[in-house]
Parts: sequence; structure tokens; C-alpha cells
Amino acid sequence: MEKKDKTQETEISDLGEFGLISRLTKEFPLKNSSSKLGVGDDAAIIEPEGDKEILVTTDLLLEGIHFDVRYVPLMHLGYKAAVVNFSDIYAMNGTPKQITVSIGVSSRFTVEHLDMIYAGIRLACEAYGVDMVGGDTSASVTGLVISVTCLGEAVRGESVKRSGAKETDLICVSGDLGAAYMGLQLLERENKVAAESGDPQFQPDFAGKEYILQRQLRPEARKDIIEELHAAGIKPTSMMDVSDGLSSELLHICKSSDVGCRVYEDRIPIDYQTAVMAEELNMNLVTAAMNGGEDYELLFTVPLTDKDKIEKLSNVKMIGYITKPSLGAALVTRDGSEIPVKAQGWNAFQH
Amino acid sequence: MEKKDKTQETEISDLGEFGLISRLTKEFPLKNSSSKLGVGDDAAIIEPEGDKEILVTTDLLLEGIHFDVRYVPLMHLGYKAAVVNFSDIYAMNGTPKQITVSIGVSSRFTVEHLDMIYAGIRLACEAYGVDMVGGDTSASVTGLVISVTCLGEAVRGESVKRSGAKETDLICVSGDLGAAYMGLQLLERENKVAAESGDPQFQPDFAGKEYILQRQLRPEARKDIIEELHAAGIKPTSMMDVSDGLSSELLHICKSSDVGCRVYEDRIPIDYQTAVMAEELNMNLVTAAMNGGEDYELLFTVPLTDKDKIEKLSNVKMIGYITKPSLGAALVTRDGSEIPVKAQGWNAFQH
Repeated sequence: MEKKDKTQETEISDLGEFGLISRLTKEFPLKNSSSKLGVGDDAAIIEPEGDKEILVTTDLLLEGIHFDVRYVPLMHLGYKAAVVNFSDIYAMNGTPKQITVSIGVSSRFTVEHLDMIYAGIRLACEAYGVDMVGGDTSASVTGLVISVTCLGEAVRGESVKRSGAKETDLICVSGDLGAAYMGLQLLERENKVAAESGDPQFQPDFAGKEYILQRQLRPEARKDIIEELHAAGIKPTSMMDVSDGLSSELLHICKSSDVGCRVYEDRIPIDYQTAVMAEELNMNLVTAAMNGGEDYELLFTVPLTDKDKIEKLSNVKMIGYITKPSLGAALVTRDGSEIPVKAQGWNAFQH
Repeated sequence: MEKKDKTQETEISDLGEFGLISRLTKEFPLKNSSSKLGVGDDAAIIEPEGDKEILVTTDLLLEGIHFDVRYVPLMHLGYKAAVVNFSDIYAMNGTPKQITVSIGVSSRFTVEHLDMIYAGIRLACEAYGVDMVGGDTSASVTGLVISVTCLGEAVRGESVKRSGAKETDLICVSGDLGAAYMGLQLLERENKVAAESGDPQFQPDFAGKEYILQRQLRPEARKDIIEELHAAGIKPTSMMDVSDGLSSELLHICKSSDVGCRVYEDRIPIDYQTAVMAEELNMNLVTAAMNGGEDYELLFTVPLTDKDKIEKLSNVKMIGYITKPSLGAALVTRDGSEIPVKAQGWNAFQH
């Protein structure tokens, strides 16, 4: 976090709660026709079209658990807080439309810090066509708290749950995996080096690692994949986004759908920078890709008959198939042996 | 907060995130026809009827700012966290239908503590016919964090905003004011006495003060008033709930509606226990009623032509009237002088 310069920055208590809310939310004009009333009343008013169903998702981000302000720029933090919620809506085959943002903030933070967080949220809202319609702003005696709730729309009956995967369905994943996790390892390493150097001018070395950093600090939601699937006439039988790691999400789909699965180690998409970083840190690459999390890619299943259509999509890879439940969930290694998939996923309660 | 007995209680880390969510949410069956999919996917699915608009409100409750676990029973805390959101939906002339609950919790808390919070939320959901459809559960390195978002329904076009008050409208308020604030003063006093006594068996003296305690610890939302208004054929021109204090809310309505107001000191409804407590603590009663907050009563305006109808409602009192904006907002004291209304409301940033 940038250092406070008390001569130039504004204490939150100078503005008061209502002044603060007014300042933070004034640059969020409503764009969607369904957003009838935004910030400034007891509740926002949403008027969905008659053939739409509403999707609701929420995420709580806590300082020291989900982010570290020592190396996460506040604008990126705001952007990410919004985007991870949009990702959940896309993962239901929907379109995000509105968010509410609640922030709890301690006196360590100035109004200018909050401006940065909201600037990031605004960027995300603009990029994805989402309206900010409400929220809550409060003092916090401890760390920074960000709670975002996102509403989205789907055509009635077209939402895709985790529970629809069927035996022989193909398992697909967008983009690549493990990069955000490696970006976090890099940030933590450089932060440690900086602390040990004792040099306030220390410059971390991020050359050639821009992709994994961006994946950690400023992830995007796969709106493009949802659009490509629609255009190709593909409706997944089940879908979710990869936030806790591929292993964890595969188990969710298997449990919700009452199926098993086989995924192939050599089919798991991994970026070159991710592999280089794992090598540098002497970490197991497949473990990082399977369990790293925060990828915000889409994991979905399609009927076998959609195989040709899927092969034409450049950003989607088939990584395995759905089996009957008795076979369990397993990773097929390069030498053909099977390892049970375990949810080692990022578990905040083990911190 | 109840003391932990490690031999009987369950560490949160023993269950893990998904085990915990499953345990906390398993006793929340969906009751509303619009709740199509609840906890357990990337997002919940809500299918509103075609003639309904959706209301969205959210509240963030932080330990040490909004509540003190030393004297707030956790079940009451859960109940209140839900009810204050329902209150916002009623204040729009709507009906609460779904909530999401996100909780951040430090290792001081056991699973049994969380069970108590969720038991309170469940009680509130049952009492008000609301479904719990989602949320997020996370570790917290600091205090307890509760973020609740509530969705409600209103007949399309029937939502009541803060902005519709017109000159000559009557200003009405339900129930009585200042009691929750006095309940908080009492709790803080008894907590201080207990600490100073050094006696772990110390029993606070709450006899004859049950009402103000209940108003603080276990407030209700005025569903009944909304139903009475409907039954009487009254649609308020503006409405909001009293959470930050009457003064603050009057100014919100005046600002949103571009009007002024006059309210009469001798018309402000105050309960006997509130008055006794103010006397005991040597505090100004009218200040407590005007600025105490957390009353969760409904403040609303109606056309002058509805005066007879309002007079028939037993739980609603007319406290003043709307003026042209140039007259500002003022309290008319018992001796007929006018004092400008100021938002001294409860401001968490001044803690």
C-alpha cells in the first residue's frame, strides 16, 4: 500500500459516512435498462425482463486472508473484487448486471486509498457492462474488508449448474491453470527479499513474469468463452469457475452431478511462464495447476457429440471425460497410472 | 461471547470450508417459489414473477464497530444481521424473499459459535418467510465480519423511495424511538460494572428494562406496518427505515425529495422505559430519540388527505409535516421555538 502523506490526503472522518459514500459512488452512472434505481435509497430496484431469471453470488475478501496490501495495488484489488463475482455469474451461463459493494476500512486508509479501490471497481464495471447499485461503507477496527454481491441475468431455464454432468461427457477448461498461484509465489518471494534487503528503494524483478503477475493481480472473467459457446451453439451440461483449484472444482462437479471423472495430466493447459516459475521455485508444476486456484477459468462439461465444435474453439481444451460415479475422480498421469483427485484447494481456514 | 470449552467444541479447521458451509446451511430449506436454486453453486437462481421488481440491499456488520460479542448473544447477532436487511426491503414497500450471508471468522470462534449465529439467522428467515440462498465463509485474521445481502420483491412500480415527499405531506413514524440506543447504554454500563467488579459470576441488573434491551439486541422489522398500510389503502409518498436516527433520516428524505420539514418534539413517540433510562443516565431524552438510531421503525410521508386513515392505525404517529425546501428541516420544541435538525446520527467513522 502506498504510504500516507498526511499533508495531501484526506482522512475518512473528515468526510463522514454519507459524504464518503457520495464521493465514492458519484462516478457510477447506471447503464443497464434493468437497473431502475441505484445507490442512495434503502434498496436498489432491479426490473428484470419477463423471460429472465436472476442470478446472485457474493464474495467476501478480507485483508490478511485474501489479499496483502503490501503488494496488491488497491486499484487492482478493486478490479479483482468485482471480476471474481462476474466470473461466478458467467459460470452459470449468465451475464453480470449489477453489483453492491460493502467496504469496511480502518483509519490506516485515507479517502484517496478508497478512491483507488473504487476506481478499480469502476474499471471492471465498465469493462463488463455492470452497474454499481448499492453497498455499505463502514469503519473497521481491524483490516480492510470488501464484500461484493453480484446480480446477473440468464434466459429463463438456460442457467448451467454444477449438477448436470453425464457419463461420457467431455470435460473442458478455458485458458490455462496455475499461473495466478505462481504469480502469488513470485509476489511473496519479492516481498520477502525486499523486507530482508532493508532498502526502501528496492525494486522487485518481474521481467519476463508479467503474465503470471497479471493473472494474480488483475484476473479477467471469461465473458469471451461464454459468448463463443453461445455462438457455437454449445450449452454445457455443467459448469463452474476455477477459483479454488481444478481438483477442488472437479470434485464439486462430480459430487453435484453424482459422476466420476478422468482427467489427463498431459492435457492440463499450463502457460510457459507458469512452468518457468515452478522450475525456479522448485515446485511441482502439476500440483500448482491442479490446486493453485484463483484462475477464474471456466470448467465445464459438454456432450460427446459436441466434440467437433469444441475442437474449433481456440481458448478451450478438452482435458478428460465424465465416468460413472463408482470410478471416482482421478488424474491419469503421463505414464498411464491413476491418482485420485483430492481437494487440496486453497483453504483459508488452514492459515 | 460464551467461553470456549475445547473438550466439547469443534475447531473450524476440523471441518474445512466446504464442510463448514454444508453444516451451517443444511437447515435452510427453500420456501419461496421464486427461489429456484439456493446454496451450493456458483450463484443462486431467482425467478421473479413477471409483474415484480427486485429490491436489493446490503449491510456489513463488523465486530468492535457494530457489535461487541462481550454482551451480544451470538444468536441475537445473527437474528439482527438478517432483520436489519429485511427492514430496508419493507422500507421500500417490498417483501424480503432471499438473503445471502457471508461470514469471516477468526480462530477464537468455534463451529458451535457459528451454529448459534446461523440459528439466529434461521429464526429470522422463518419469522419473515425469507430463504437463505448463498454466501461465503472465510477465515478472518481479525474480528468477526458478517455481510448480509437481501433481495426482495415489490409489485412493479409500487416501490416507495425516499424522493417522493411533497409539500404539506404528513410525516409519520411507527412504534417508538430511542429505545435501542438506551438499551445499548445499559449494556455498556453493566459491562463496565461487571469488569470493575472483577467477579466472573456478576449478574447484570436488567429488571424492568427488558423492552429497551430487546430493542437493542433483537430488533424486529415492521412487516406489520407495511401490511396495515396496504390494508388501509395508504401508499406513502416517501419512506425509509430509521437506522441512523430520526434526524439523519429526516434529512435524507428532505434532500432526496427536495423539501423541508417541521417535526414536533412533543409528538415524538418514546417508550416509558426509554425515558426512565435516560433519566437514570442523566441523558437528554429527545436527543436520544432523535439521534440514537437502530430503531428499525418506518419513517414515511403520506398526502394530507390520508390523515383520517393514518389516525386509525394504532402503531403509527404523525409527528410533523413537509414544507417547501427553503424552510429547511427543523424540530419545533415544546415552547414553540425551532431548532434546525442536524444529522448527529451514529457515525461509525467517529469511533
